[in-house]
Amino acid sequence: MRLYDLELSGNCYKVRLFAALTGIDLERVPVDFRKGEHKRAPLLTLNPWGELPVLEDGEVVLRDSQAILVYLAARYAGEAWLPRDPAGMAEVVQWLSTAANEIQSGPATARRIEKFGGAGEKAEALGRSTRILSLIDAHLAHHDWLVQGRPTIADCAVFPYVALAHEGGVSREPYANVRRWIGRVEALPGFVGMPGM
Amino acid sequence: MRLYDLELSGNCYKVRLFAALTGIDLERVPVDFRKGEHKRAPLLTLNPWGELPVLEDGEVVLRDSQAILVYLAARYAGEAWLPRDPAGMAEVVQWLSTAANEIQSGPATARRIEKFGGAGEKAEALGRSTRILSLIDAHLAHHDWLVQGRPTIADCAVFPYVALAHEGGVSREPYANVRRWIGRVEALPGFVGMPGM
Repeated sequence: MRLYDLELSGNCYKVRLFAALTGIDLERVPVDFRKGEHKRAPLLTLNPWGELPVLEDGEVVLRDSQAILVYLAARYAGEAWLPRDPAGMAEVVQWLSTAANEIQSGPATARRIEKFGGAGEKAEALGRSTRILSLIDAHLAHHDWLVQGRPTIADCAVFPYVALAHEGGVSREPYANVRRWIGRVEALPGFVGMPGM
Repeated sequence: MRLYDLELSGNCYKVRLFAALTGIDLERVPVDFRKGEHKRAPLLTLNPWGELPVLEDGEVVLRDSQAILVYLAARYAGEAWLPRDPAGMAEVVQWLSTAANEIQSGPATARRIEKFGGAGEKAEALGRSTRILSLIDAHLAHHDWLVQGRPTIADCAVFPYVALAHEGGVSREPYANVRRWIGRVEALPGFVGMPGM
């Protein structure tokens, strides 16, 4: 099973983190992002969106880090990481949407602009970052984990760009519950970090 | 089962559309958005994010339109609308992420700015809209439906803001495959539209 990977991408790291926590064996294929390898064949054929990560597992080819987490959990990691009951599954999907929407347009975008000089409105991204970090912090005031009192793929999807928020100029200082949750994630058996953490 | 609902919200419409297509009975509770009813108790207690839709089904309370689609499909609508095999489920989730990320920050944001005078960079939202519509159009050149050759919740999640794109100043004219797919969705038994379509 191959992960087309970029070391500095928080989206790729979601997949590396989950694989490390669950003992899934991934062959990491580094992609030369600066040379635009993801914007031409063969990678652009695997993922017409020209983005990373991409997972290839035999016939199965998936773009989008949230979808890859769902696939790996459902196929290889058992129900603990992705509940199969309708309410539990939907609770996880709430946070996958948060990762794809508010976190992507908030802390991930602030980091992209700050660290890689990408296009975009930094002030807007910072405003979205403080809103979403406050909401997550309030949720974690009464929960050790995002869903159902145990680590799930929801934590793996939300963790990377929250733990990298300082690279976009967003301080974690006001968010004590978020900081404690980061500590709990880092203490999980098998945890791996990424550059910048 | 209650849907806290806003008639003009494409995110609320995702849920109304899916319920109509599958014969799920929803009690619609209209929320006075202009008076900020969603920003104070009791709605803010149900959804601390202060957004719509919110679904309440006995003990289950869910925010986020994608999560609500997953819940309704898994609990009430059977496997056809949400595959349970890992690859099929992940394929659907790819498009739920697209709805939460690229469509929300593209055509949904362009419409919000244009129609409701919301804050944000219109030019950026338009740029993201043409990119995502082109990618969806290319996908639909070889597929009648987004996933697995049949309608799923992926179509219900992506359809609303694509079919409303003109309200944000985004023309559907260049996207012939998208237009044909819109026609197929509108021809589904039980289909309901919303204002602006």
